[in-house]
Amino acid sequence: MEKLSIIKIGGKIIEDETSLHAFLKLFSNLEGKKILVHGGGKRATYIASKLGVESKMIAGRRITDKETLDVITMVYGGLVNKNIVAKLQALQINAIGLTGADINSVKSERRPVKEVDFGFVGDVKQVNSNGIDKLMKADFTPVFCAITHDGNGQLLNTNADTIASTIAVGMSEIYETSIYYCFELNGVLRDFNVKDSVVKVINSKTYKELLDAKIITDGMIPKIDNCFDALNNGVSRVHIGNTSMFTKENEFYTTITL
Amino acid sequence: MEKLSIIKIGGKIIEDETSLHAFLKLFSNLEGKKILVHGGGKRATYIASKLGVESKMIAGRRITDKETLDVITMVYGGLVNKNIVAKLQALQINAIGLTGADINSVKSERRPVKEVDFGFVGDVKQVNSNGIDKLMKADFTPVFCAITHDGNGQLLNTNADTIASTIAVGMSEIYETSIYYCFELNGVLRDFNVKDSVVKVINSKTYKELLDAKIITDGMIPKIDNCFDALNNGVSRVHIGNTSMFTKENEFYTTITL
Repeated sequence: MEKLSIIKIGGKIIEDETSLHAFLKLFSNLEGKKILVHGGGKRATYIASKLGVESKMIAGRRITDKETLDVITMVYGGLVNKNIVAKLQALQINAIGLTGADINSVKSERRPVKEVDFGFVGDVKQVNSNGIDKLMKADFTPVFCAITHDGNGQLLNTNADTIASTIAVGMSEIYETSIYYCFELNGVLRDFNVKDSVVKVINSKTYKELLDAKIITDGMIPKIDNCFDALNNGVSRVHIGNTSMFTKENEFYTTITL
Repeated sequence: MEKLSIIKIGGKIIEDETSLHAFLKLFSNLEGKKILVHGGGKRATYIASKLGVESKMIAGRRITDKETLDVITMVYGGLVNKNIVAKLQALQINAIGLTGADINSVKSERRPVKEVDFGFVGDVKQVNSNGIDKLMKADFTPVFCAITHDGNGQLLNTNADTIASTIAVGMSEIYETSIYYCFELNGVLRDFNVKDSVVKVINSKTYKELLDAKIITDGMIPKIDNCFDALNNGVSRVHIGNTSMFTKENEFYTTITL
């Protein structure tokens, strides 16, 4: 099976022009088939506030109303995505920017209303891996933003980590697929204050130990659960680290295995 | 040679939700290979003014500064393009939204500064017809917005009519290509006040007569010149009319021939 790398970058990398450019250069040098998935960062919040669209929170969770969805579509799908595509083209990567609506690549379902109505937020239901593979086979490099669609004409705001992992699961039917979750740290840290205290490998046994020792807490728990889900559904390897982790020089990152 | 229809729609159709939906329904029923090119409409001006980005005009011409380009990228490349794609998916058209940066489909050059510096405005230099054809052969329907790139990482604001005609010229190496310029009138009118006074055919001889008779004036002149350029460079047919002109029921439109 041919190898495929799926790289997910978060908001902080996107917000800083210099670090974005440095990352895109590393990405362009990465050999083999690859897919980029990006979040949106604070640009959307900034544009929303300038447009007078209030950030609505219920029980600490952000609500995506119609106006917020429009801002997200403008910022993630337009400004961020198309500038990344143009920059990759300058680095000789034949990039193509996508939402889940494009070629029906990622279909989702609006999150059902229970205690909270999250608004136009989608939970991924289906990845069109054959469609995405047609782009890959044509030597195009897909660049996904964190927007999907419901198949009935509605765009939906969707978590970028989940988009990366569900695309990886879908593509693992065709490729030996690895996910690289890039963020500002060097990996999962044993001691949050020591930046090189990276836990090199997490498997189901050590995960439990790290949870018990409260080394993995809060927001990291759903992230790691998401990684195990991907591994249980066909993805070969999942890594968490900084934006240079997929280069040969870097050996500081966390690998999740079953 | 297989047939290809390139449909260009302007701002007014996009601004009205009902007419956009009606048009997209007609477009989805159009048989054969097709490409949609859309302008932006007044949404960009509205968003720009809400964001405090001033519309700069020099000698009656709009200037695209950095802030205006960002708004255009958000509105044309994000909001308008991705909503059209989602709506087409709901109509069973496997649409893919593109700027000229995506798959390096339309490369342009920043307009040279002479008397006026137009800012980030691009004049089309090269269409990647093989790349676009890979999408067509995969049964995807390209939806282009009025943004191109310079190959060095810079997005550029570009006239949608020109994008449509240069893509048509590029694709005419592979397909028997027709362009349909849709606007709010039924075609080129003999009498502006009589909506059915459509000039059915314009060729180089009658064009001169219509110019002398001042039936074709002002903004229509560069549009028609653009049509003749396309015909002189391989495009088979160019039509101007309303959004239903490519349906079998409608016979009121203008056809430009050599």
